[in-house]
Amino acid sequence: MGEFQLIEWIRQQLDEDDPDLSLGIGDDAAVLNLPADRELVITTDTLNSEVHFNSETSPPDLGYKALAVSLSDLAAMGARPKWVLLSVSMPAEDRLWFEAFVGGFLELASNIGVTLIGGDTCSGVLSVTVTALGLVRPGQALTRTGARAGDLVVVSGHLGDAALALFEQQGGETRDEICFQALHRPVPRIALGLSLVGKATSCIDISDGLWADLGHIAQQSGCGAIIEVARLPAGSALYEQQESKRWQLQLTGGEDYELCFTIPPQQKSSLQELSTELEIELTVIGKIVAGRGVQCVRPNGQLVELEHTGYKHFEH
Amino acid sequence: MGEFQLIEWIRQQLDEDDPDLSLGIGDDAAVLNLPADRELVITTDTLNSEVHFNSETSPPDLGYKALAVSLSDLAAMGARPKWVLLSVSMPAEDRLWFEAFVGGFLELASNIGVTLIGGDTCSGVLSVTVTALGLVRPGQALTRTGARAGDLVVVSGHLGDAALALFEQQGGETRDEICFQALHRPVPRIALGLSLVGKATSCIDISDGLWADLGHIAQQSGCGAIIEVARLPAGSALYEQQESKRWQLQLTGGEDYELCFTIPPQQKSSLQELSTELEIELTVIGKIVAGRGVQCVRPNGQLVELEHTGYKHFEH
Repeated sequence: MGEFQLIEWIRQQLDEDDPDLSLGIGDDAAVLNLPADRELVITTDTLNSEVHFNSETSPPDLGYKALAVSLSDLAAMGARPKWVLLSVSMPAEDRLWFEAFVGGFLELASNIGVTLIGGDTCSGVLSVTVTALGLVRPGQALTRTGARAGDLVVVSGHLGDAALALFEQQGGETRDEICFQALHRPVPRIALGLSLVGKATSCIDISDGLWADLGHIAQQSGCGAIIEVARLPAGSALYEQQESKRWQLQLTGGEDYELCFTIPPQQKSSLQELSTELEIELTVIGKIVAGRGVQCVRPNGQLVELEHTGYKHFEH
Repeated sequence: MGEFQLIEWIRQQLDEDDPDLSLGIGDDAAVLNLPADRELVITTDTLNSEVHFNSETSPPDLGYKALAVSLSDLAAMGARPKWVLLSVSMPAEDRLWFEAFVGGFLELASNIGVTLIGGDTCSGVLSVTVTALGLVRPGQALTRTGARAGDLVVVSGHLGDAALALFEQQGGETRDEICFQALHRPVPRIALGLSLVGKATSCIDISDGLWADLGHIAQQSGCGAIIEVARLPAGSALYEQQESKRWQLQLTGGEDYELCFTIPPQQKSSLQELSTELEIELTVIGKIVAGRGVQCVRPNGQLVELEHTGYKHFEH
């Protein structure tokens, strides 16, 4: 099975019943007919072997996660996902591997309702790049620049599960199933992102760790933030860890793919309603303040000292 | 310099004076405000180290070519390029390399008038993925499906120069400068693609070799094609080769990034005018016929036997 057969096989898996798609897979490019009253939101992310995943990652999990990571970026913008492009480099033809990988990818694509419209397949070290496109009403995209002093800082779900799974995986320990799922099958918070449009003053997805990502909001909004670490939402596996390790994982571990957003304090009462409606935990963990930087405070008022501030390529 | 500094450095290189760009680099995603009377054309291409290029490729040439390859796909659709996303994986932080690479990329971007709106940088084996977006009037995109028996098959520029340069490079021979440029600095035929809208019945860019790429048009249009190999346009370096080698390089070498298109025979007279206006050689090399497959015919009427039919990943 060569490159063209791979592409043909993918086409057969698709249900291209999309009135906004003028031309899908199989030409030099795809052609999209966008609704006139929407802006296009677009993001691209690469996952590399031995950097973002390793041989312990199953092909369907890799396919699922490669898409989830990009959809999480659309969620953070408050966009409704519509289309995706998938580029795969792999060292050799392996139809079983490829079908399993694409199966995981299309499973999530089907769940979310996004259409695969193009991509590239070529030989090389295993690497996956996904470009995701979504729609938002004009001027309504959630950005990192709107946080103001006094706003509450809120996160969805639990933090640190994926980082704990990665830590355990590196140590060869027995893994907690919930943490394993958090690492390999993160749930992009699309419904939450859509619900935050017009409510949140800023939003980001937590891919590099809360401290670093909230730091982006603080920096790009020209303000600071204070987090009360005792409020960081955690699952049972995290609570079995020592406090200092728990906070380290939650603040700097990365790979959470939850949303961190800010809302004016008068919006606080709407959080419970939203949480119930979407069946997602929403936790106020701190607030935006004048100044700069993100300070993480213990219950006794002392600052938490962290070993590093989020995953950084080229600095480890 | 970490990932975030790389992104900040890129932002400083950009002139984001684009009324259709609502939000550029620096958030979870970019936001585009598309004109209501246009369709969006989108394509993505990956270049991998030791597959598409090697250590002999200079960083600026790699940056230039990574963009040129994707713009060539937009040209083949008759689209006007507008925006690009750039994902770079590289083994280690090397600011000099990165600046030289991005310099080559932005040199072409500036020449063409496309804006870099996002991307990703991460550690990994050297690999570049470019997603390019362009605009076309609704229903006007050039596709592979419209060729009809009787149409003329036309190619732009010269074929085989890049393949000869690659062949010479692999053998360590002295290189012809024109061929070297064809391999490392291909010119995306954007003005030609735009001019072919409403004229050509089908169009493709020649990346995998004329035989394979015209084969895609034939297959997807449900017809066949006959090429007269003596008509294949060649530069002086190609004419120094034996005929059999020349035809082999021109038909299967790939990497030409010229356009191959079909026009109804009554449009033939407009080719000369177009060629003069755009200062691009346009050569009628054969015709579309009933049937299937692409036949390459010598002046004596014999078929050319080829060793393989274009670069195929996973089949070499």
